[in-house]
Amino acid sequence: MASITCSGSIALDTTRTPFKTVENVLGGAASYFSLATSFFAETHICSVVGKDFPEKYWQLLAKRAKLEGVQRKGGKTFHYDSTYSFDLYHRHANKTELNVLGEFEPLLPEKAAKSEFIYLATMPPEKQLSVLKQAKNKKLAFMDTIEYYIKNEKEKLLETIAAVDGVVLNDAEARMLAEEANLIKCGKAIQKLGPEITILKKGEHGSLLFYDGKVVPFPAFPLEIIVDPTGAGDAFAGGFIGSLAKQNAFRPTLAQMKTAMAYANVMGSLAVEDFSVNKLANTTEKEVEKRFREYCELLRI
Amino acid sequence: MASITCSGSIALDTTRTPFKTVENVLGGAASYFSLATSFFAETHICSVVGKDFPEKYWQLLAKRAKLEGVQRKGGKTFHYDSTYSFDLYHRHANKTELNVLGEFEPLLPEKAAKSEFIYLATMPPEKQLSVLKQAKNKKLAFMDTIEYYIKNEKEKLLETIAAVDGVVLNDAEARMLAEEANLIKCGKAIQKLGPEITILKKGEHGSLLFYDGKVVPFPAFPLEIIVDPTGAGDAFAGGFIGSLAKQNAFRPTLAQMKTAMAYANVMGSLAVEDFSVNKLANTTEKEVEKRFREYCELLRI
Repeated sequence: MASITCSGSIALDTTRTPFKTVENVLGGAASYFSLATSFFAETHICSVVGKDFPEKYWQLLAKRAKLEGVQRKGGKTFHYDSTYSFDLYHRHANKTELNVLGEFEPLLPEKAAKSEFIYLATMPPEKQLSVLKQAKNKKLAFMDTIEYYIKNEKEKLLETIAAVDGVVLNDAEARMLAEEANLIKCGKAIQKLGPEITILKKGEHGSLLFYDGKVVPFPAFPLEIIVDPTGAGDAFAGGFIGSLAKQNAFRPTLAQMKTAMAYANVMGSLAVEDFSVNKLANTTEKEVEKRFREYCELLRI
Repeated sequence: MASITCSGSIALDTTRTPFKTVENVLGGAASYFSLATSFFAETHICSVVGKDFPEKYWQLLAKRAKLEGVQRKGGKTFHYDSTYSFDLYHRHANKTELNVLGEFEPLLPEKAAKSEFIYLATMPPEKQLSVLKQAKNKKLAFMDTIEYYIKNEKEKLLETIAAVDGVVLNDAEARMLAEEANLIKCGKAIQKLGPEITILKKGEHGSLLFYDGKVVPFPAFPLEIIVDPTGAGDAFAGGFIGSLAKQNAFRPTLAQMKTAMAYANVMGSLAVEDFSVNKLANTTEKEVEKRFREYCELLRI
C-alpha cells in the first residue's frame, strides 16, 4: 500500500468556544491530518515540537504515525490561542506564538522521502517547496495555504501551487487567490494555475471537487452538535489523501476521487465532534466505515 | 396523475443586477412555481393580477397552468423592484407595491379545490389558511413564508404551519422561526411545530430534507453563471412538489422524496440561468431530464 508524508504544524492549542475552553491541547495541521490518515495508510510527519511538548501527546501521535521527521527543539512548541463565535462559524485569533515553528527547517528522513503521497499543510511556501523537492518518490502532492501567504507571498505561493497536483483550500482562500466571487469560476481558475485536482471547502456547506473537466459538489455530513471546528479542514484532507493512498490511486479515476471525497467528509465530520483531536484519536475503523456507508446512502437517489 | 394547486403572487418585477436591469417582467412565486410544476403535473393557480398585466404574460402562464383561479382586478399588478449585490447573494428591496395583491381574497374554483397537492406560497398566514380550508381533496399541503410574517404574525403563522404537511423555508427564515443557529436543530424544531416534511434551502449551498427521522443533505447543482436568482426558491418548490405529484406520492417513501429533491435542485438551477421566468418558460422536458440524470450521476459515489 502507498504511504503518505505530511509536513506542517504540531501545536498546543488554546481553544475558546461559547461553551467551554480547553488550554494547551494537541493541535496543528499535521496532528489532525495524520490521525485521519492513520485509518488508511502509513503516515510520516515532518514537523517540530519544543521541549514543553507533553510526552502523552508524543505517544498519542507515535501510536498512529511515524515521527522520525519530527524535530525536538529546545524552545516552546507552536501555540495558537483562538476564540469561536457563538455559532462556531467565525474564529478570532488571540495569540499566534510560532516559537520553534518560526525557525523550522523541514527535513524528510529517508523513509518519509519515499512516500508516494505528499501533503504540504500550511507553511511558508518556500518551506513547502523544500519538502516537495525532498520527496523523491512522490506520485501525487497536495497543499493547503492561508490568506496570509496569498496576501504576502503570492509569487512564491504561485510557484508552489504550480508544482503540486492538488490543492485543498477553503472558500475565502479560493476567492482571494482567484480574485473571483463565484466558487465554480474560482475552482476552474485555480486549476489553470497548475493543480488538476482542486478541492474547495465550504465548512458546514460542503465542498466542491474540480477534476477531469467536472465540478462535483459534496454536502457536509449533517451534524446536530458541533463541539470544536478546529482541524476539520486538515482531517478532511487526511480522509481524502488517506483514501487515495489506500486505493493506490496514483492516477485516480473520478470514481476513486469520489470515494476519497466521501472519506474526506467523514473524517472532517468526526473531527468536530469533540475538542482537539479527541474524537479522531478515540474513534474506531468500524465507526469510520459506518459513517462512510451512511454518507453514501444519504447521497444515493 | 395527481394535480397541484398553488396560491401566491403573480408579479411584475423590476430586477437590477450588476450586469443588467429588467423592468416589469413576469415574476411572483406562483409564476415560478407553476412553470416549474408544469413539467410534472397539471397545476392550478390561485392569484390576482391588475388590468396592466400584459396579455403576453397571461398567455405564457395559460399555456402551462390553469388560470381559472386567477382574478383580474381593476388596479395595478403587484410590483416588486429589487437590486442584487455584486455577487448576486444579497437582495435589497427598492419598492414593494402590493396593489391588487393587498386586497386579494383567494378563492379556489371547483377544479382547483380538488387538487391533491397544495402549495401555499408566501401570503399573509390567514389567507394561506383560507386556501387550505377550501382545498377539500388535499393529500399533502406545503407552505412557504417570509421573515415579515415570522416577526409580525407569528401566532397565526404557527397555526398555519401546524395545519400543513410540509414547509419549504430558507436558512434565515428557519433560524428566525426556530430561534436556533444550527440548521439541523432548526429543522428538527420546525418538524415539532407540525410539518413532518421540512425542507431548508441554503441557496448555492444546497438544501436539507428532514423526513422520516432522517436529515438528508443535497448540494446545489453547480453553476458557473448565475444571471438572476429571483424565483429560485419557488422553482425549487415546484420541482419538488411536481415530482411528488407525478409519482402520486401521497405518503412518500424516502426514495420518492429524494427523487423529488433532485428535481427541486434541477428546477431551481434552471430558474437562475436567465432573467425572470425566461429559462423555465423556454426549457424542454428533455433538458430537465438530462439535468436530473446529470445531478444524480454527480452525487453517486
